[in-house]
Amino acid sequence: MSSKFRHVALIGKYQAQGSRSALEDIARFLIEQGCDIALEKDTAQNTGITAHSILDVAQIGKQCDLGLVVGGDGTMLGIGRQLAQFGVPLVGINQGRLGFITDIAFDDYQTTLTPMLHGNYQEDPRWMMQAEVVRGGQSVFHATAMNDVVVNRGASAGMVELRVEIDGRFVANQRADGLIIASPTGSTAYALSAGGPLIHPSIGGWVLAPIAPHTLSNRPIVLSDKGEIAIEIVAGRDPSVNFDMQTFASLRHGDRIIVRRSAHQVRFLHPVGWSYFDTLRKKLHWNEGVA
Amino acid sequence: MSSKFRHVALIGKYQAQGSRSALEDIARFLIEQGCDIALEKDTAQNTGITAHSILDVAQIGKQCDLGLVVGGDGTMLGIGRQLAQFGVPLVGINQGRLGFITDIAFDDYQTTLTPMLHGNYQEDPRWMMQAEVVRGGQSVFHATAMNDVVVNRGASAGMVELRVEIDGRFVANQRADGLIIASPTGSTAYALSAGGPLIHPSIGGWVLAPIAPHTLSNRPIVLSDKGEIAIEIVAGRDPSVNFDMQTFASLRHGDRIIVRRSAHQVRFLHPVGWSYFDTLRKKLHWNEGVA
Amino acid sequence: MSSKFRHVALIGKYQAQGSRSALEDIARFLIEQGCDIALEKDTAQNTGITAHSILDVAQIGKQCDLGLVVGGDGTMLGIGRQLAQFGVPLVGINQGRLGFITDIAFDDYQTTLTPMLHGNYQEDPRWMMQAEVVRGGQSVFHATAMNDVVVNRGASAGMVELRVEIDGRFVANQRADGLIIASPTGSTAYALSAGGPLIHPSIGGWVLAPIAPHTLSNRPIVLSDKGEIAIEIVAGRDPSVNFDMQTFASLRHGDRIIVRRSAHQVRFLHPVGWSYFDTLRKKLHWNEGVA
Amino acid sequence: MSSKFRHVALIGKYQAQGSRSALEDIARFLIEQGCDIALEKDTAQNTGITAHSILDVAQIGKQCDLGLVVGGDGTMLGIGRQLAQFGVPLVGINQGRLGFITDIAFDDYQTTLTPMLHGNYQEDPRWMMQAEVVRGGQSVFHATAMNDVVVNRGASAGMVELRVEIDGRFVANQRADGLIIASPTGSTAYALSAGGPLIHPSIGGWVLAPIAPHTLSNRPIVLSDKGEIAIEIVAGRDPSVNFDMQTFASLRHGDRIIVRRSAHQVRFLHPVGWSYFDTLRKKLHWNEGVA
Repeated sequence: MSSKFRHVALIGKYQAQGSRSALEDIARFLIEQGCDIALEKDTAQNTGITAHSILDVAQIGKQCDLGLVVGGDGTMLGIGRQLAQFGVPLVGINQGRLGFITDIAFDDYQTTLTPMLHGNYQEDPRWMMQAEVVRGGQSVFHATAMNDVVVNRGASAGMVELRVEIDGRFVANQRADGLIIASPTGSTAYALSAGGPLIHPSIGGWVLAPIAPHTLSNRPIVLSDKGEIAIEIVAGRDPSVNFDMQTFASLRHGDRIIVRRSAHQVRFLHPVGWSYFDTLRKKLHWNEGVA
Repeated sequence: MSSKFRHVALIGKYQAQGSRSALEDIARFLIEQGCDIALEKDTAQNTGITAHSILDVAQIGKQCDLGLVVGGDGTMLGIGRQLAQFGVPLVGINQGRLGFITDIAFDDYQTTLTPMLHGNYQEDPRWMMQAEVVRGGQSVFHATAMNDVVVNRGASAGMVELRVEIDGRFVANQRADGLIIASPTGSTAYALSAGGPLIHPSIGGWVLAPIAPHTLSNRPIVLSDKGEIAIEIVAGRDPSVNFDMQTFASLRHGDRIIVRRSAHQVRFLHPVGWSYFDTLRKKLHWNEGVA
Repeated sequence: MSSKFRHVALIGKYQAQGSRSALEDIARFLIEQGCDIALEKDTAQNTGITAHSILDVAQIGKQCDLGLVVGGDGTMLGIGRQLAQFGVPLVGINQGRLGFITDIAFDDYQTTLTPMLHGNYQEDPRWMMQAEVVRGGQSVFHATAMNDVVVNRGASAGMVELRVEIDGRFVANQRADGLIIASPTGSTAYALSAGGPLIHPSIGGWVLAPIAPHTLSNRPIVLSDKGEIAIEIVAGRDPSVNFDMQTFASLRHGDRIIVRRSAHQVRFLHPVGWSYFDTLRKKLHWNEGVA
Repeated sequence: MSSKFRHVALIGKYQAQGSRSALEDIARFLIEQGCDIALEKDTAQNTGITAHSILDVAQIGKQCDLGLVVGGDGTMLGIGRQLAQFGVPLVGINQGRLGFITDIAFDDYQTTLTPMLHGNYQEDPRWMMQAEVVRGGQSVFHATAMNDVVVNRGASAGMVELRVEIDGRFVANQRADGLIIASPTGSTAYALSAGGPLIHPSIGGWVLAPIAPHTLSNRPIVLSDKGEIAIEIVAGRDPSVNFDMQTFASLRHGDRIIVRRSAHQVRFLHPVGWSYFDTLRKKLHWNEGVA
C-alpha cells in the first residue's frame, strides 16, 4: 500500500554533521514508500544534495502535501511559520535531544514514520500570532510569531513603561524589563523563564508575562486569543520588539504593537500515542515517580 | 417603565451591622421600580425582616428572575453555586470594600441598579467545577466549586504525592504540600498565592497550581475545561480535599478526585461599562501610571 | 602513621539492605587505620553487629573524637543535632545518591577517608536553631533544629495569621499557609519549594519564607542569626509547628514560637577539595555548560 | 545646648519645585541650632542659593561632619557612594513619598532633627560593592555600587551566558537575560523584581539573582560579602554591565566582572525609634493587620 502523502518536501536547514547522509537516508526511505520527493531550496544549497527536485517554501506550500523537517524545534517553528498559510502539515525528525515538537528520534524514524505515512497519526494544530507595529495610525512593520512577541527595554536603560489594552479596554500600565506575549507553544520557552505558566495547546489564549516587573502583583495573565492585544510604548529608552526572535528595533514612544490570532494554524503531526505531557515531563525533568 | 426583572430575591446572609436597614432600603427601592420582592430564608431569619414573602434557595431558583446579593464575594459565590442550575442571574451590592464580583457600592446602588433593572447590563458567565471523590470505583462524595478544588497534605505530615491524569492520560506525579485546581474565578484567590497566573473568565480552562512543589520545574499549568482531570492520592499521611472550602477529610491512598466542568454557569450581571481589568487593577493595587 | 582520630563512632540507623556488611567493612578499615571503634546503640540493635563496644549518643559525645555516619542527609542531620553540644565532628558515607552533606560515596570511601583520618579535611560548621514554644510567659516545649522551624495552618482550615517580631520589633503580620524559618542548611530543603533563596553556609542568617502568602509582596526575607525571632499565633484553626519534622501540634492563639541561634555548631568534615557549589549544581541539576 | 555636628553640608541636587525654599528653611534652622552651613556645589548651582560657603563633594568629605540630603533615595545613594570614603554620616529629608533610606518628612523635620543634632540617633551603616571589569588580566573599568552590579544581555539578542566563580571556585554557568549582584540595600530594588529575597542590612552578604534564567532551578543565592565574586562573559551578543545604573557597555567574551566588598561603609543616620521593618511594611504595602 502506498503513502497517504504523495508529494513530500524534505527540509533541514542546518549543515550539521551527518545532516546530508540523514536526509539522503530519509529520501531513499520515502521513495520506497511511494512518495515523490522535493528538497527545500536552502536545504539543497547547504547540503549539496542535487538528486531531487528543488522547491522554495512557497512552491512547497502549493505543491506538497507533507513537510518533513530534520532538525530541532527552532527549524520546525521557522518553517511552520511560513507553511501555515498553505495548510501543509509537518513532521519533525530530530538527530539530537528530542524537542517539544520534533519528537521523532532519527534512530527510530522508519518504524515511526511508516504508519504515519499511511494515515495513522495525531494532528496537533497550533495557532500563530499575527503582529504589527502601528505608528501614527500607520502599520510600519508586521510579522507572524509561533512562540512569542516580546517587548524589551534598551540594553542598559532602566525600565520600559508599557500600556496594555485588550479590545480597546485598558488593562494595565506596566513598568518592567519587558513584556512577553506567548502562545501555548511559546509558554514552554522564554515566558516560562519569566515566571509564566505552562499552557496546554488546546487553550485558546495567550499569556502576558512581565519580565522583572516593578510592581510585585503584576502577575502573568492568560487572555483569550479572540481579542486584540495592544501594547503601547509609554516610556523608556531604546525599546525594541521581537517576533520569535525577529527584531524591530527602532520603536518610539507612542508606537503600538498589535497582536491578534493569525488566520492560520500550523499543523504538526505526531505518531499515534504521542502525548504532550510525556514530552513536558521529559523536557522539564519532572520526576515521574512510581507510575 | 417597569423593571425587566419582575420577581427579585434579596439575599444577604450575614448579620453585619446595618445589614437589616440596607436590605429594607433596597427592598423599598425595588418595589418602587415595580418588582415583586422575596427574601431568602436564612436572610430573613438572620435579619428578622418579615415584611416580604420568604423563599428557600430552590424556590428562588424556580420563581425568581433575579437574585440581588448584599454582601461580599464569599456570599455571592455561595449563593451562585446553588442558583447556577436554575439560571437565575445575580447582582452583588457591597457595603464594604468592593470585591471581584460584588462590584456595586451600596452608596451608589440606586443610580447603578436603575438601568440594570431596565435591561442595560453586562452578563459575566462563569463555569463551575463538578467534582467527586471516587473510591474503589464508587463515588463517595461530590460537590460543586466556583473557585477551586484543593488537595492538601495533613497538618504536620510531610508532603503528599499525587498522580495527575487528564482524560486518562498521565500528566505528572507531584510531591508537594498540595495541588490547587482553580477556575478563572478562583485564579485571583488561593491559586494566586501559590504562584498561579491570573486567568481571564473568557478562557475555557482551569489552572493546576502545586503548593510548594518538591520539584522546582513543577510549574502551574493551564488545562482545557473540556477534559476530565483526575488526582489520585499516591502517598502522604491524612490528606484531605476542599471544594471552595467545603472539606472532605478522610481521603485514603488510591482515592481519586475527579474534576469536570459543570453543566451550569453562574450568571453575574454588571453595570454597562464594568471592566474585569479595572477590578483587577484595584484589587491587586497595580499602579495605573500616567494613563 | 596512625589516624588523627583515635576513637571513632559508627552510626547508621536504618536497616537498609547491605547496611550491615557496609558497616562491618568500614569498621575493619578503621581498625586497620589504628582507630578504636564504637557502635552507636540503635545501629548495633538494628544491624545485629556485636563485635564492638556499644555506646549511646551521650557516651559517643563524651568518648569519641569522630562520628562516621553511613546513610543519607536525614540520618546525618538527626545525629548532628544530638552531637553538636559535644563538638564531635561528623563524616557522612552514602550508599545511594549523594546528599548535600553526605558526600562520600561508599564505593570510594577508603581512598577518600584515608587522608581525612590523617587530618587532611575541610571543616564545614553549621549553626543550629534553638527554638521554644512560650505560652503565657512559660516555656511549654523546646527543640533544636538544623534545617527549619515551620509554623503550619491546620489541615483543611484556611490560613493562619502570624505576627512576626525580631528582637522585640514588629516585622509583619502574615496571613499564609504557614511560615518557614530556615537555616542555610535548610535553605535547600522545604524553604526552596516555598520560593526562598539558597543561602551559603557562611552567611550568619536565617530566611523567613512564607508559604502561599495572601499578600503577594510578602517575600522571603533573610535576617541575622544574632537576633531573636518571635512568631505569635494570631488567628487560624489548629496551627502546629515543626522543628526539623518534630511536631508540636497543640498550638493556641497567643502562643509564641521563639527562635535563637543555638550555642552549638554541628561540625561536618569533607575531603579537601569538596565544594558546596559542586554539590549544589549536582543536586539542583544545573547545566554546567561549556566550562 | 549646641549641635553635636558643627559643620553641616546641605545637599539637594534636583531643581524640584520648592526645593530652594526648603533648603533655605533648613539652613536657617541649622544655623539657629549652632551649625556652620556649607552648600554642595551642584546644589548651589541648581538652586541659585549663594548665602553660604560652597564646597564640592571632596571638600565636604574633608571639612563637614554631617551631610543633610534633601531628596529621594536616588540622591541619597548617589552622594552616599561619594562620601563613604570620608566617613561623613548622612541624614535624608524627603519632600515627597518617604523612601527606604530618606525617612524624614519635610513637614516634621524640625521636631525630628533636633534630637538627632544633639546626638540622639540610630546609625545604619551599609557596605558598598567595589567592582571592576578585567580584560586580559588588566583592569579596564572600576566603579562603586550601593545597590547592585547588573550584567545584561544586549537589547534584542537572546540570552547571555555567564560563568560565576567565588574566591576562584566555580559556582555555575548561567544562561539568562542577566544577573544581578545586589547588596542588602539593593535587595529592595531591581533584585526584588527578579525574584530575589529581601536581605536585612545586618547581613554580611550579597544576593545573586538571575533574570529570567533558562534553568528553572537557577534560584537566587545569598553569598558572603567577604568573598570575591567573578562573573565571566562566556557567550551572548552585546552584553553590558551596570553599577548602580552607571553603564560599561562594551563588554567582550572573556571579560570578567569582579565584585568585592568596598573598604568603606556609608553611614546613614535615623531618628531613635526608626525601624527598617516599619519602612519595609509601608513601601511594600504589607497589611499590618490587627497589631
